[in-house]
Amino acid sequence: MYLSALLTSAGINIAVCVVIFSLYSVLRKQPRFMNVYFGQKLAQMKTKRHDPFCFERLFPSASWIIKAWEASEDHILASGGLDAVVFLRLIVFSIRIFSLAATLCIFLVLPINYYGKEMEHKVIPSESLEVFSIANVQTGSKRLWAHCLALYIITCSACALLYHEYRSITKMRLSYITEGLSNPGHFTVLVRGIPWSQYESYNETVAKFFSTYYASSYLSHKMVYRSGTVQKLMTNAGKMYKMLKIPATEQQCGTSFMRCGLCGETATSFKILVTEAESDRKRSDFDGSDLRKEEYAAAFVFFRTRYAAMVAAQSLQSPNPMKWVTEKAPDPKDVYWTNLGLPYRILWIRRIAVLVVSILFVAFFLVPVTLTQSLVNLDKLQNTFPFLKGILKRKFTSQLATGYLPSVILMLFLYIAPPVMLLFAAMEGAISRSSRKKSACIKLLYFMIWNVFFANIFTGTIIKNLVGEVARNLKNPKNIPNELASAVPTTATFFMTYILTSGWASLSFELLQPLALLCNFFYRYVLRNKDESSYGTWTFPYHTEIPRVILFAVMGFTCSIMAPLILPFLLVYFFLAYLVYRNQILNVYVTNYQTGGLYWPAVHNATIFSLVLTQIIASGVFGLKESTLASGFTFPLIICTLLFNEYCRQRFLPVFRRSAAKVLIEMDWQDEQSGRLEEIHQRLQSAYCQFTSTTIQDETMHENPCETVVSELQDLEDVASGKAQISGSSIGHPSPEIKESDLK
Amino acid sequence: MYLSALLTSAGINIAVCVVIFSLYSVLRKQPRFMNVYFGQKLAQMKTKRHDPFCFERLFPSASWIIKAWEASEDHILASGGLDAVVFLRLIVFSIRIFSLAATLCIFLVLPINYYGKEMEHKVIPSESLEVFSIANVQTGSKRLWAHCLALYIITCSACALLYHEYRSITKMRLSYITEGLSNPGHFTVLVRGIPWSQYESYNETVAKFFSTYYASSYLSHKMVYRSGTVQKLMTNAGKMYKMLKIPATEQQCGTSFMRCGLCGETATSFKILVTEAESDRKRSDFDGSDLRKEEYAAAFVFFRTRYAAMVAAQSLQSPNPMKWVTEKAPDPKDVYWTNLGLPYRILWIRRIAVLVVSILFVAFFLVPVTLTQSLVNLDKLQNTFPFLKGILKRKFTSQLATGYLPSVILMLFLYIAPPVMLLFAAMEGAISRSSRKKSACIKLLYFMIWNVFFANIFTGTIIKNLVGEVARNLKNPKNIPNELASAVPTTATFFMTYILTSGWASLSFELLQPLALLCNFFYRYVLRNKDESSYGTWTFPYHTEIPRVILFAVMGFTCSIMAPLILPFLLVYFFLAYLVYRNQILNVYVTNYQTGGLYWPAVHNATIFSLVLTQIIASGVFGLKESTLASGFTFPLIICTLLFNEYCRQRFLPVFRRSAAKVLIEMDWQDEQSGRLEEIHQRLQSAYCQFTSTTIQDETMHENPCETVVSELQDLEDVASGKAQISGSSIGHPSPEIKESDLK
Repeated sequence: MYLSALLTSAGINIAVCVVIFSLYSVLRKQPRFMNVYFGQKLAQMKTKRHDPFCFERLFPSASWIIKAWEASEDHILASGGLDAVVFLRLIVFSIRIFSLAATLCIFLVLPINYYGKEMEHKVIPSESLEVFSIANVQTGSKRLWAHCLALYIITCSACALLYHEYRSITKMRLSYITEGLSNPGHFTVLVRGIPWSQYESYNETVAKFFSTYYASSYLSHKMVYRSGTVQKLMTNAGKMYKMLKIPATEQQCGTSFMRCGLCGETATSFKILVTEAESDRKRSDFDGSDLRKEEYAAAFVFFRTRYAAMVAAQSLQSPNPMKWVTEKAPDPKDVYWTNLGLPYRILWIRRIAVLVVSILFVAFFLVPVTLTQSLVNLDKLQNTFPFLKGILKRKFTSQLATGYLPSVILMLFLYIAPPVMLLFAAMEGAISRSSRKKSACIKLLYFMIWNVFFANIFTGTIIKNLVGEVARNLKNPKNIPNELASAVPTTATFFMTYILTSGWASLSFELLQPLALLCNFFYRYVLRNKDESSYGTWTFPYHTEIPRVILFAVMGFTCSIMAPLILPFLLVYFFLAYLVYRNQILNVYVTNYQTGGLYWPAVHNATIFSLVLTQIIASGVFGLKESTLASGFTFPLIICTLLFNEYCRQRFLPVFRRSAAKVLIEMDWQDEQSGRLEEIHQRLQSAYCQFTSTTIQDETMHENPCETVVSELQDLEDVASGKAQISGSSIGHPSPEIKESDLK
Repeated sequence: MYLSALLTSAGINIAVCVVIFSLYSVLRKQPRFMNVYFGQKLAQMKTKRHDPFCFERLFPSASWIIKAWEASEDHILASGGLDAVVFLRLIVFSIRIFSLAATLCIFLVLPINYYGKEMEHKVIPSESLEVFSIANVQTGSKRLWAHCLALYIITCSACALLYHEYRSITKMRLSYITEGLSNPGHFTVLVRGIPWSQYESYNETVAKFFSTYYASSYLSHKMVYRSGTVQKLMTNAGKMYKMLKIPATEQQCGTSFMRCGLCGETATSFKILVTEAESDRKRSDFDGSDLRKEEYAAAFVFFRTRYAAMVAAQSLQSPNPMKWVTEKAPDPKDVYWTNLGLPYRILWIRRIAVLVVSILFVAFFLVPVTLTQSLVNLDKLQNTFPFLKGILKRKFTSQLATGYLPSVILMLFLYIAPPVMLLFAAMEGAISRSSRKKSACIKLLYFMIWNVFFANIFTGTIIKNLVGEVARNLKNPKNIPNELASAVPTTATFFMTYILTSGWASLSFELLQPLALLCNFFYRYVLRNKDESSYGTWTFPYHTEIPRVILFAVMGFTCSIMAPLILPFLLVYFFLAYLVYRNQILNVYVTNYQTGGLYWPAVHNATIFSLVLTQIIASGVFGLKESTLASGFTFPLIICTLLFNEYCRQRFLPVFRRSAAKVLIEMDWQDEQSGRLEEIHQRLQSAYCQFTSTTIQDETMHENPCETVVSELQDLEDVASGKAQISGSSIGHPSPEIKESDLK
């Protein structure tokens, strides 16, 4: 591939980006797309909307960029939670390290590469891209020391930055814990594997156990019940009824914009009607003798203090480790109710099964990737398949085929993965929605690094030497670094186009939200439903975005000293990402649940992995170039990087795994002094409610309207994921989580 | 190697065993070796000894075998602790499974092997051993189904037995915990990484922290102090003085056999003299302004209840995970004081360094092993080195060289490993002597399996095909099962001789205790010291014996269906081991500290590993024999075995890692009801004493005389390990732990 082809590709992408960004800046000013582009703002706002028409609306503007740029971190924290801050920190970290790497590599390494061999250079646009990579440096050249030096500087700065980030995120996590004073999750423990007794219901068994062994700290508990099919049908029917009826009642309310309170009296009275009938049914079901049949062997147990809850969550309760299994309860909105009923004793089999299936999925995904990659190497393929020559003669077709198509195909295939991984994570038995997303995020990370990064490197080389010699070499593990070393500089070309297409374009799609727009159209013009509250809002798809950003960082690190030309494209991507994601976090996504920064350890590990990978590849390249000294000098660097990682594991990781006793005890003191403890205790029981009916019975319905739909929504999410999986059309949001925005 | 050579070897070994066992039965009746063969009995006994001379003493007898056989498990538990029971359970498990395997393989598999190929059989003694192995079965034979069936039966029975053992040992561990009602370790937490403060001593910092955050449960604490050189010198001088003087005072006491109480008044008054001077010095040192300088950042913290201590030990105390690191304190006699002073923040580097060094040690140990193995293949070597032919022509020399010498050389080399591994385990920062031993045990297990089992298989094959073709094949990981499959049946010969020499002979040495006998002679006739209390007694060397027994089990499993001829030899070994180790546990070794059954999970994992290895090898062999169906049928077996292991991990392992809250709380209740809590609290402070002086000051010296020498003895142990490492002469007990036997 020549520089001109790359520039063509860049040109196309820049044009696409500019068009989409302008389109976005126009669309966001249209009131009817308010619920697409300002989901979060709408969820917070409760005032009436003023939408006078003016011509300004039709012109593109850059005001959103300025707003996104100016927002403070506290603002982000308030609207996106700690996870959003962690995600943006990842982007900031990438910007910092790749700015340094770009400066260093373009002014130090690139000239050495370019003038590496004594050759006549062509006009720059028609130079092959390999001229700019380390492949152009002469074997045995002493100039490789510059590459080695650059590697040292990049590694050391990356470690310093990582340490700084880890420390500040640890601090943020601690203050996230201390600031959540009224968080009911702190006082609650989820108990599973309650032993079955012939004479008692689970309810009684739990009460007996905890009032015996935790007499001083046990407050009360709440069982998890089987969600019957009738219950499900009724709530679904209620929802359908609401969706169809509300357009008619809307006129009375005067505004379609008052989301909270659901059109005042009408909706409320409707709800009360539905739920009274339901609660009657429930009462006859539950309060009778069938109560035991409806119970799962799981319960939320509430304690008087945070410290007592932590202690109960950490301890091994019974000599049989499969019984009385306790763990910290997730926040009420975060609970993944569907999984709570799973018998604890079979969870380990599920986990193993999911692990095996995930590995198989990751492995067999290689097939479409290989096909994709063969398009990049069309010029090599045409030697084998002569009929291709005719098509490839036309320059533009050739450039399009090699520069643009492969990435698009790959990207489309990649959209299947996130919903599948979410499904896997749910099957594993995640008890909270945030942990489900985190698990999917880590699975996708492996998936992306293996299927995009490594697969492209290896398949690229295999097709290059069609004989299959490489395949044989690969079987010998000692050759892998060498194989990587020879492949990475050449595959860098593909990575550049990948960044241009998948990277830049995904940001445009993220901004434009085509799926949400389509849904909007569908609701508005097909279903003729004007109640915007039923369109649904989304939570941030960390499980797709974090792996994507990390994948680009891995490409950046590994190519930095091999093919420095990639760095400017990458920097542009990260700058755009910074603006786009800030905008989206501030405006679009709602934050119903969060992990509290638990994504950072995964990010840290992935970064360390990419650093070590870079060093191994560099060492291999230095070896291939017969500069054994430079090759040897990278080994201490590998060891130091691994030691640094181990230090961070020791120093910071435990805070992300367990809560510090000191912190919780001090929070308990604060509560006691302020006298809020009693109030918190009273709210605990109502915080975790599985069904509408129970909420009604407690008469706390109006306080926590959002929780009434939690269990149905989880089913909806699964359906949405499944749909996306089949159609593969959920561009930008492969597995969105549809969520009512009736949040306080 | 022919059957006759094997039988020669067996003959030699049987003769050696009979002679040594008879010698033992005579020696154990001699009163002057009482302290060698009845160390434990002596430690328990406090009455006078009657030793009338009679001729019966000079005749060998089998009474010890009967006594060892008849002892009940409770008796073993009382004298050897739970670890001894676990160790004997391992042997019993091996006897059971290999009895089954031997019956099955000798009556089902062996005939199939022997009549596998249509060939003329020679007279049985001059048959090659390969005729009895699976190598003799024809390729593509349908009879391989018998092997597959045998594999299934062995695996299933092994899993059933393992499950049964794991369950009963878990129960034993629970009752070990509940029965240790007055164990001070339950109430104690070891705190390390106490933060340094400019204005306070560590002592004050600890008191402040725990009385603030654990106000209701904190009782008191005890700092760990720097053990100064003067302190060391004084105790050493005191010991020397005692050793030289006591023969003179012995006459007054009337008996040299009263170990406890150390010759009544004389010794006590001497001790008081020494320790008063010492305590004066100590007082001036410690109570003054230098106190802070003498403190380490570590302390034992005592709590009011067991549950409170457990909670404090499990929690993350501070937001900085490197500070206030708590863990369950070991029992007082188990504390490894030398390591308590290590700064916690560098422990992780030590651990990594030790890990790397251990791996290197295990890897480079291969050199002598390769040399050893080359002796077995002398007949192959003589093709390359013709001068060997003359030596090997003599039949007896040849049989000796191939059958006996290699194992002896290997065994001698192997004696270097245990002291080195103990040293590594100490360098890792083990806080208890039992955990040090356990860590050394696991390291040695890897060492033995790699260096004896795998190395012999691979080096055997490499020498066989001197061209080095195998070495190239080995680099390809896919070929390893095939390589193993072709190598194991042939290497089985070496394993048989190894069991004969290393196995049987090591048991004889274990029984005879040559090192202890030598020490006895040295003390008695060179130093002319007649006080038997200073000769030292030993704790059971689990770190050498468990890996050895497991190694034999691995050999047994892998060879069972390949070369069933090994099984009778193995069964004899396990029967002898059962008798010998029971005898030794009952009579010789004292039990000052124990892990409480923590060896079992390691044993379980090793057994699962050997089962899976057997299955992989069997699958490879079936593949080589072109019986793909039988080969395919072993795969479900591998998966089921791994799933079974995972189930056991879930079901039993947590009990070995953490204490169940329920159990501890119930123990606390018992204490409260019986009113012993006050008494236990009073004894806590004096239980953990680092120095003689502190014991004296508390005036509890006479209650716990054994603890006064704990810190010195640890240095002695290290010296002993070092010595053994250099001289390599510590046969039978490569790294004994010398220990005063003045136990209550």
